[in-house]
Amino acid sequence: MNADTLEHDMIYYFGEGPVDKELLGGKGANLGRMRSIGLPVPPGFTITTEICNHYTAHNDYPDGFTDAVAANMAKMEEELGKSFGSTGNPLLVSVRSGAAISMPGMMDSVLNIGLNDDSVEGLARQTENERFAWDSYRRLIQMFGDVVLGVEHARFEEALSEVKDSVGAKNDTDLKTGDLKDLVIRFKSIISDEGKTFPQDPWQQLRMSIDAVFMSWNNERAIRYREANDIPDDMGTAVNVQAMVFGNTGKNSGTGVGFTRNPATGENKLYGEYLLDAQGEDVVAGIRTPHPIEDLADQIPEAYEKLQDISDILEEEYRDMQDFEFTVQEGKLWMLQTRTGKRTADAAVKIAVDMADEGIIDRETAVMRIDPESLSQLLHKRIDPDAERTVIATGLNASPGAASGHIVFDPDEAERLVKEQDEKVILVRPETSPEDIHGLVSAEGIVTSRGGMTSHAAVVARGMGKPCITGCKDAAIDLSNQAVWFKDREYGTGDLITIDGATGEIMDGQVAMKDPQLSGEFESLLEWAEEFRTIGVRTNADTPEDAARARSFGAEGIGLCRTEHMFMAEDRMPIMQDMITAESLEERQEALDKLLPMQQNDFADIFKVMEGYPVIIRLLDPPLHEFLPAREDLLGEVVERSLEGRDLTRLGRMLKKVKNLEEANPMLGFRGCRLGIIHPEIFAMQVRAIIRAAATVKKETGNKVKPYIMIPLVSMEEELQHVEDMVRSVATEEISQVDVDLDYKIGTMIELPRACVIADRIARIADFFSFGTNDLTQTTFGFSRDDSEGKFFDGYKREGVMRKNPFQTLDRDGVGTLVKMAVDKARSTKEDMSLGICGEHGGDPASIEFVIGAGLDYVSCSPYRVPIARLAAAQAAIRQP
Amino acid sequence: MNADTLEHDMIYYFGEGPVDKELLGGKGANLGRMRSIGLPVPPGFTITTEICNHYTAHNDYPDGFTDAVAANMAKMEEELGKSFGSTGNPLLVSVRSGAAISMPGMMDSVLNIGLNDDSVEGLARQTENERFAWDSYRRLIQMFGDVVLGVEHARFEEALSEVKDSVGAKNDTDLKTGDLKDLVIRFKSIISDEGKTFPQDPWQQLRMSIDAVFMSWNNERAIRYREANDIPDDMGTAVNVQAMVFGNTGKNSGTGVGFTRNPATGENKLYGEYLLDAQGEDVVAGIRTPHPIEDLADQIPEAYEKLQDISDILEEEYRDMQDFEFTVQEGKLWMLQTRTGKRTADAAVKIAVDMADEGIIDRETAVMRIDPESLSQLLHKRIDPDAERTVIATGLNASPGAASGHIVFDPDEAERLVKEQDEKVILVRPETSPEDIHGLVSAEGIVTSRGGMTSHAAVVARGMGKPCITGCKDAAIDLSNQAVWFKDREYGTGDLITIDGATGEIMDGQVAMKDPQLSGEFESLLEWAEEFRTIGVRTNADTPEDAARARSFGAEGIGLCRTEHMFMAEDRMPIMQDMITAESLEERQEALDKLLPMQQNDFADIFKVMEGYPVIIRLLDPPLHEFLPAREDLLGEVVERSLEGRDLTRLGRMLKKVKNLEEANPMLGFRGCRLGIIHPEIFAMQVRAIIRAAATVKKETGNKVKPYIMIPLVSMEEELQHVEDMVRSVATEEISQVDVDLDYKIGTMIELPRACVIADRIARIADFFSFGTNDLTQTTFGFSRDDSEGKFFDGYKREGVMRKNPFQTLDRDGVGTLVKMAVDKARSTKEDMSLGICGEHGGDPASIEFVIGAGLDYVSCSPYRVPIARLAAAQAAIRQP
Repeated sequence: MNADTLEHDMIYYFGEGPVDKELLGGKGANLGRMRSIGLPVPPGFTITTEICNHYTAHNDYPDGFTDAVAANMAKMEEELGKSFGSTGNPLLVSVRSGAAISMPGMMDSVLNIGLNDDSVEGLARQTENERFAWDSYRRLIQMFGDVVLGVEHARFEEALSEVKDSVGAKNDTDLKTGDLKDLVIRFKSIISDEGKTFPQDPWQQLRMSIDAVFMSWNNERAIRYREANDIPDDMGTAVNVQAMVFGNTGKNSGTGVGFTRNPATGENKLYGEYLLDAQGEDVVAGIRTPHPIEDLADQIPEAYEKLQDISDILEEEYRDMQDFEFTVQEGKLWMLQTRTGKRTADAAVKIAVDMADEGIIDRETAVMRIDPESLSQLLHKRIDPDAERTVIATGLNASPGAASGHIVFDPDEAERLVKEQDEKVILVRPETSPEDIHGLVSAEGIVTSRGGMTSHAAVVARGMGKPCITGCKDAAIDLSNQAVWFKDREYGTGDLITIDGATGEIMDGQVAMKDPQLSGEFESLLEWAEEFRTIGVRTNADTPEDAARARSFGAEGIGLCRTEHMFMAEDRMPIMQDMITAESLEERQEALDKLLPMQQNDFADIFKVMEGYPVIIRLLDPPLHEFLPAREDLLGEVVERSLEGRDLTRLGRMLKKVKNLEEANPMLGFRGCRLGIIHPEIFAMQVRAIIRAAATVKKETGNKVKPYIMIPLVSMEEELQHVEDMVRSVATEEISQVDVDLDYKIGTMIELPRACVIADRIARIADFFSFGTNDLTQTTFGFSRDDSEGKFFDGYKREGVMRKNPFQTLDRDGVGTLVKMAVDKARSTKEDMSLGICGEHGGDPASIEFVIGAGLDYVSCSPYRVPIARLAAAQAAIRQP
Repeated sequence: MNADTLEHDMIYYFGEGPVDKELLGGKGANLGRMRSIGLPVPPGFTITTEICNHYTAHNDYPDGFTDAVAANMAKMEEELGKSFGSTGNPLLVSVRSGAAISMPGMMDSVLNIGLNDDSVEGLARQTENERFAWDSYRRLIQMFGDVVLGVEHARFEEALSEVKDSVGAKNDTDLKTGDLKDLVIRFKSIISDEGKTFPQDPWQQLRMSIDAVFMSWNNERAIRYREANDIPDDMGTAVNVQAMVFGNTGKNSGTGVGFTRNPATGENKLYGEYLLDAQGEDVVAGIRTPHPIEDLADQIPEAYEKLQDISDILEEEYRDMQDFEFTVQEGKLWMLQTRTGKRTADAAVKIAVDMADEGIIDRETAVMRIDPESLSQLLHKRIDPDAERTVIATGLNASPGAASGHIVFDPDEAERLVKEQDEKVILVRPETSPEDIHGLVSAEGIVTSRGGMTSHAAVVARGMGKPCITGCKDAAIDLSNQAVWFKDREYGTGDLITIDGATGEIMDGQVAMKDPQLSGEFESLLEWAEEFRTIGVRTNADTPEDAARARSFGAEGIGLCRTEHMFMAEDRMPIMQDMITAESLEERQEALDKLLPMQQNDFADIFKVMEGYPVIIRLLDPPLHEFLPAREDLLGEVVERSLEGRDLTRLGRMLKKVKNLEEANPMLGFRGCRLGIIHPEIFAMQVRAIIRAAATVKKETGNKVKPYIMIPLVSMEEELQHVEDMVRSVATEEISQVDVDLDYKIGTMIELPRACVIADRIARIADFFSFGTNDLTQTTFGFSRDDSEGKFFDGYKREGVMRKNPFQTLDRDGVGTLVKMAVDKARSTKEDMSLGICGEHGGDPASIEFVIGAGLDYVSCSPYRVPIARLAAAQAAIRQP
């Protein structure tokens, strides 16, 4: 291949090429763009990414490459009136890599190219600053030796330390010209010790530096980074060759970095820092403390003023907050880089809303600019970014927010400590089950050593907006000794830890936190999102508190109210257990009669909060054994009680029932509508409670009440028909006894593949569908979510077999195809059937996009994800073709 | 509605109506048919099922019905020269019900209608047999009182006993005319005691009897029977009114039942029994011992000869073996009923093949005539039908065959007793796991109190052709005391029981059995089936023995060789456990190196047996914990060993691993290709063993060897691609080291819904698919087969929610739709891809029919079901439109 086969020129002079990041890399494109709108950018040129690919493929350059470099160098020489390699007026250049995406592992930059034993003298004379010239030269040799010649970086540092020690210098800046000359000699001999030579020919310096950038594209670290981040190998990097400007020529010079707005708060004010008399690497090195950028107004006022103008121009040009680098040489400002600035979630919201208000962007752009996921940071307490911390273990970031508390291993103990001693506790367990719910309610946060992002602890914690870390393999819990080892540190009951559910980090002791603040801009953004959103956003809420919270975040109804959690309260659990262990229908009915008014109250409170919005209530779903203690625990208690000579009747019954209910695969077992068919009295009680509650609330408030009764785990239309008949007859009976006209609906969860396949027939019976994509994902893949995430998902990711956890982002190819099939079949039976999704995916932006495409009516998610879903739904609607 | 709206005549005179079972019922249609081909059938007529439906709907008859009855009665009177209700020459008739399907619970028959206080005298005079006339009369009153008037049957029996006692008569036949007259008086007063009257008017007798038949169509027992057997209520019954003939008029008369061939053996020889001087009910009553039908040749030779002729005519007419009733009155033979005769499985095969050889039917008909399921009776030992037995418990008939043996509860003990003492044992367990395999191998039969038709014990037992009863709720097993309660009888280790896996019955002690015999006719039938069969039949076999057995039954290759069972042998299990508990890759490899030659030998033996037929070998599938002891067992052993001060290293490692491998839902857990991706060294070892074995056998025998390597539990194409790459590279490496040209294939199980949905993409990688419909049924329905059958399937059937267990007969609507989708998608990628089914459904006739319709290439089933599948596949092919 020669140059003729390239699609573009090999090299573009800054400001004369296209604004094309793929061709010129991010840095090169932006340098050119700044120059073309008249900003002060030192001249230079970009060697395209095509050349990188050519170099990678052929280990050589296309024909004519050397001439092209020479021509562009000549253009720079002419523009600046300097000459590359000249002794009297030497042109010095930097060589920097610049891919379309910034990428660690690649060669970064070589500065001061063009200096040699002769031109260093010329530079000294020209600048009348011998120290500056020799410092620049030693820096060139050091950088070139390190990044181009591959000599170990530490060897240069050692030599530098030796010289500093020998002259009693504390900092590099304390070195005198003679010391620097000494260093140049030492550096050269370090290089020649390695059998290499620092080239005196500036052209050779330039060529070798360019080579080094291209070679670094394929070094191991860069390759690994690309693999991990899905960056294609043929993206390539560009190389930027640019005339040097110097911020280290005296007190009228300096260098710094800035943001057009405050990246932490979003405040519309130039933000940044700088060092006088310094080069870029000095800012990075962190030895000297930089000044806030405002101080520049006093020190080099004309440069500061210019910077403020440029800041406005940049925002006007890029229509977003910019992060830039600049250098002031002898009072003159030079821009060396610009790019869109990273920012905190707070800042992102404020900047987007402010810019829309300022007319820089429109509201649609503002809505599109916020990563919905980032909103969750705003809704929870978080670790103060400035706080010191000692991370002792890391697990899965299962539920965001931060919390500090005393370790407690037992849910009862957690409840007791909180109630009686008003302590703040973190519940640390191998895993949790519905039996532990009071412990989860009491704790500030939860850590489990097992389980994944959708384990019981994770789901419940997210619902309650509590921080939770699951699958923490760093934690070895020894319940019998009430101890946990976080890696090699042992902690016991009462020890203080802090957890960050957003990062999965567990920290020693108490770490400072920041409270959540919902700004006016946050409200504005969500309001604007409403203009675009096309589907509803409901919430998964089991309590009036959750429901109220979700309403305050904008939820338009309850998409899933799980009734099982209502049985978990301390005063109800024993009745529930009596119900389960009942040995006759009469006994069972007796227990159910006690539970009925309790459930009725729960439902009434929820209906009140929801003020006429639809409330989908799922009839009892989990296997009954979840309401009974674990077998081992029971056995232990039996032993204990029998030693004490106490009565064992109740325990015996429980033990018998626990054995009887034991299942090999409870997920696929005796639960959902299967329970309701074998024990219709349980569902009947719940239906009575729902109807009575609805009637009461309607009478009391005069509001509409919309109870939607949902039957779980249906796989056959016969199941739904059977339960539907029962539900309808109980509901009819109840309605006939109250003096209220009540409209209710009966529908089903679609959470099994077979239900998707026969959705047209199920739709004949059901008024509505709610897709339970958690369980549907489990059965479609054959993945138990309790097991898979811990056992082999990590390995799958490592081996490249799995990219995204399908429990987090809905699997479009498999699960999605089944959902789409079910939607089409349902609509073929009932065109206007209400269809929604209530799995964890309902709060996941990528999944929401699918949901819109699939034609569903709403998503339902945990209260704290409602704002995220609202924003994501708006964005997805905007993105729809 | 009146008669004009009926589709047909209300009544058909025998021989003048259509041969239409739906309209005339089975009995009526056959009586008419016999008469129309000239057989001696007493005249009579059939009232149609339409009249039954009319009567049911209106509780009355259509207009003109009474006239139609009268007209047909007149026709009979004319034909016979007798007169209904006449004193001199009375016509007596019977009234019998006759639906299209015979149905218990309905009124059966009233005989001798037309007798009253006057005509009984006339009959006496006419027949010169006063005793006969009065006996007939008392029978009429008794039957009429019972079935028409609803007087309790026992009251007549009591009176009969009283009279017999009073005159010292032993049998009814000992009663004299005077006694019978006495009985008539007593019977009448029993009826009038109930406030009812025996009508003297023959027409009223007739009308009330017809009414009684129609009313009995809707009595409770009949309704329940129809419900249970899916018989529509509007099928209705016909009523047959027929002139009486009498077998009880003296020594030249008699009555009997016969078969045109022997229904037990199929021998082509008239078979049956009769009583001289008797009426039909006497044969049924069983008080007198009937004579074999051959004796009739001596006693009434002309009747016997006629019967033999008629037997031939019936077979010629019906083209099947007939079961008939006859009466000889004064030397004249009358046919009273014929229908297709029930027969044993042996007889069915012999009759079908003989009839084809005799030219009565063609081979297609012969093939269609055998219920494939019935063949399983011929392949296993069975309980001697004549043996006495005491059934002590009943469970699910999980694997057919019969066995006697001493109860043993422990698999080790079972093995020991068989090895050391050559005892025959029945293994009785709550359930079995792969760890118990040596016990299953040793036992004659297996009983489990838990688990369903597809539990581990059931699947393994069927594979080995051993009787097995699972889910025996009648059995309460107390392992700690080595006792089992079958209902209220306690049995201990060593107690003798007999089990019948075909019926699910457990019997006390040793019960006589019959050995299986495969007749020449059996072979012929299966040979003929081959002419029609369009899909292949392979076998699921894990051992050379199973493979050889399946070959002998005609299997054309192995559709599924599960490699896990190969690790269960006593000498391998410890190595397998070392492999699993290995703490480094080196340790694991060491164990695998030991296992490799063992597996290689297994494969080699199987390849030899299969003589070039395809052998699909599934790489390791079950979760690893199945190879380790149960946690409780380990804990117990740890305690024991530590008390004895013995080394705990190995146990400790196992315990740790067992805990580590514990899963909430192992069915959806760390198994199948998931194992192979995380521990590729296990799959690699198996691939080496397969390739080496194939190469060795090919060299040794010169036969083609066709190894198909199957990767289980694939849900994503990335999984298959990953494993396929590994398998191919190992196989290539192995092949390069042997001097043999070896062709092998790589394919996958399709056993998860997602695999069906993306089958087109999986087909790009796989050479073949095998549908694992067991697991596919589990995940499609969300039914754990280990749990569902025991926990709620019974309830589902009781409530009418489920008709067929989807683990026994493939669910066409759900699972079938997914299979069909996958087949279509696979063929869209690779038109000629090999597709088969290896789930339990592969041996189920109804499922095989689906499989053919879905376009699969073969079914694979356990060895003992291969003949069944061959026959079922032929039948399904014949039935295809």
